[in-house]
Amino acid sequence: MKIVKTISEVRAAVKAWRAEGLSVGLVPTMGFLHEGHKSLIDRAVKENDRVVVSDFVNPTQFGPTEDLASYPRDLERDATLCENAGAALLFNPEPSEMYAEDACTFVDMSGLTGELCGKSRPIHFRGVCTVVSKLFHIVAPDRAYFGQKDAQQLSVIRRMVRDLNFDIEIIGCPIVREADGLAKSSRNTYLNAEERKAALVLSQAVKLGQKLAADGEASADAITTAMKELIEKEPLARIDYVKAVDAVSVEPVSKMQPPVLVAMAVYIGKTRLIDNFIYEG
Amino acid sequence: MKIVKTISEVRAAVKAWRAEGLSVGLVPTMGFLHEGHKSLIDRAVKENDRVVVSDFVNPTQFGPTEDLASYPRDLERDATLCENAGAALLFNPEPSEMYAEDACTFVDMSGLTGELCGKSRPIHFRGVCTVVSKLFHIVAPDRAYFGQKDAQQLSVIRRMVRDLNFDIEIIGCPIVREADGLAKSSRNTYLNAEERKAALVLSQAVKLGQKLAADGEASADAITTAMKELIEKEPLARIDYVKAVDAVSVEPVSKMQPPVLVAMAVYIGKTRLIDNFIYEG
Repeated sequence: MKIVKTISEVRAAVKAWRAEGLSVGLVPTMGFLHEGHKSLIDRAVKENDRVVVSDFVNPTQFGPTEDLASYPRDLERDATLCENAGAALLFNPEPSEMYAEDACTFVDMSGLTGELCGKSRPIHFRGVCTVVSKLFHIVAPDRAYFGQKDAQQLSVIRRMVRDLNFDIEIIGCPIVREADGLAKSSRNTYLNAEERKAALVLSQAVKLGQKLAADGEASADAITTAMKELIEKEPLARIDYVKAVDAVSVEPVSKMQPPVLVAMAVYIGKTRLIDNFIYEG
Repeated sequence: MKIVKTISEVRAAVKAWRAEGLSVGLVPTMGFLHEGHKSLIDRAVKENDRVVVSDFVNPTQFGPTEDLASYPRDLERDATLCENAGAALLFNPEPSEMYAEDACTFVDMSGLTGELCGKSRPIHFRGVCTVVSKLFHIVAPDRAYFGQKDAQQLSVIRRMVRDLNFDIEIIGCPIVREADGLAKSSRNTYLNAEERKAALVLSQAVKLGQKLAADGEASADAITTAMKELIEKEPLARIDYVKAVDAVSVEPVSKMQPPVLVAMAVYIGKTRLIDNFIYEG
């Protein structure tokens, strides 16, 4: 596996593969890879001749008070994981390689981003859409892989690809969890032992919501209220949102008319964690 | 030459050419083609194995009070011109093929669009960037051709391509003029005989500005003031703007430090016409 820092090196590698008629998969990440990322790379390796993993903590998707500076990084460990998983190329650019000083173009959307994380993180999805568009243009993959854990991001990327006619297949992959249920996240590393225990309320709330929906509860409000009550019992937890939305339009719903995305963001101490499930009916 | 209405037909044609190793040029137009467009197609035919001309009056770049409904259309004449010029494919989609009803993604920029036409037409460049991004994704050309007549558009497209890492070469082509100097434009068809004569003030102002700059006038303000005075002598003319800006950043300049774009938009009766020159020093 090659590790490259420049756009021109990525393009040269992909062009050589294309000349051989090989297919290319892309797994965009912010690094500090865990088994969730590994599941994306594994799937990409199965479905494509060559896989590019991008490893870039994208500054434009962090708000001014967010954790850009402290976001965990470990390129060496990331490289080992990617190599073992069978990736062909790891793209780890500096911010200056990705953004010219006078860069002023952005990709954004007027829908899908008003609720959930888009509400709490107003410039987040503009940053995500912009950097993912750039990566799509740099790598020009056949397929790109995103985790269902960032459910709103997945909906936003699917919409962006449809609206802007990217000729790329978007593949969403299931949430990977720790043995006790906590969704894998690079941000779990922020948690101390006590917070790590408290963080279980997120997956417990997911399970509760799933059970209520499966048992036939038709009111989205009843489900999210029950989930909130469970989370509020945990003293270290502070709810940002627990909300049911249409899984495609990301608009709030009152009935559990599938597909419904039930998503939450919860602070455990200072760490903001997310989790969700999709009710398919 | 084939005329197609759907994105999938364009993709199929381009993929077949790519499989043969052929290069592809794109000339994006809003139709009602004139010799200005023809000069773009001619150059594209020279530099590429196959040329796609898109012929689409893009609704998202027109403001609510602008001339979307009355914008001139003549597909049959356009097709003849494209075929004679050697284009391989004419892409003439319906608006519904280009924009889903719930489309909400856009490409925009925070710089380059605050002056000139961007000031007079606030949503214009968002519409241009969005539709050009879509066409770039649909056609995936090696090169795309734009006229220097829409000088700010050309600067905006160049910046977008750089910022979003489109792997496409942007080629700007000189303004084509009528024998008496009027810049060719689809909108010239709006002019009655009297207005057609009055419209000559635009190219006369360009010539005056060029001469002053060539003679060493270093003040941008002196040049644009002289141009305005000339235009104001024409009773049918109403100035929208006459302005000198940096040709790359599209920021106002006070000195004629090259490259300077001196651009104007002038209403002749109800018809808004544009013209410009670039002072290269």
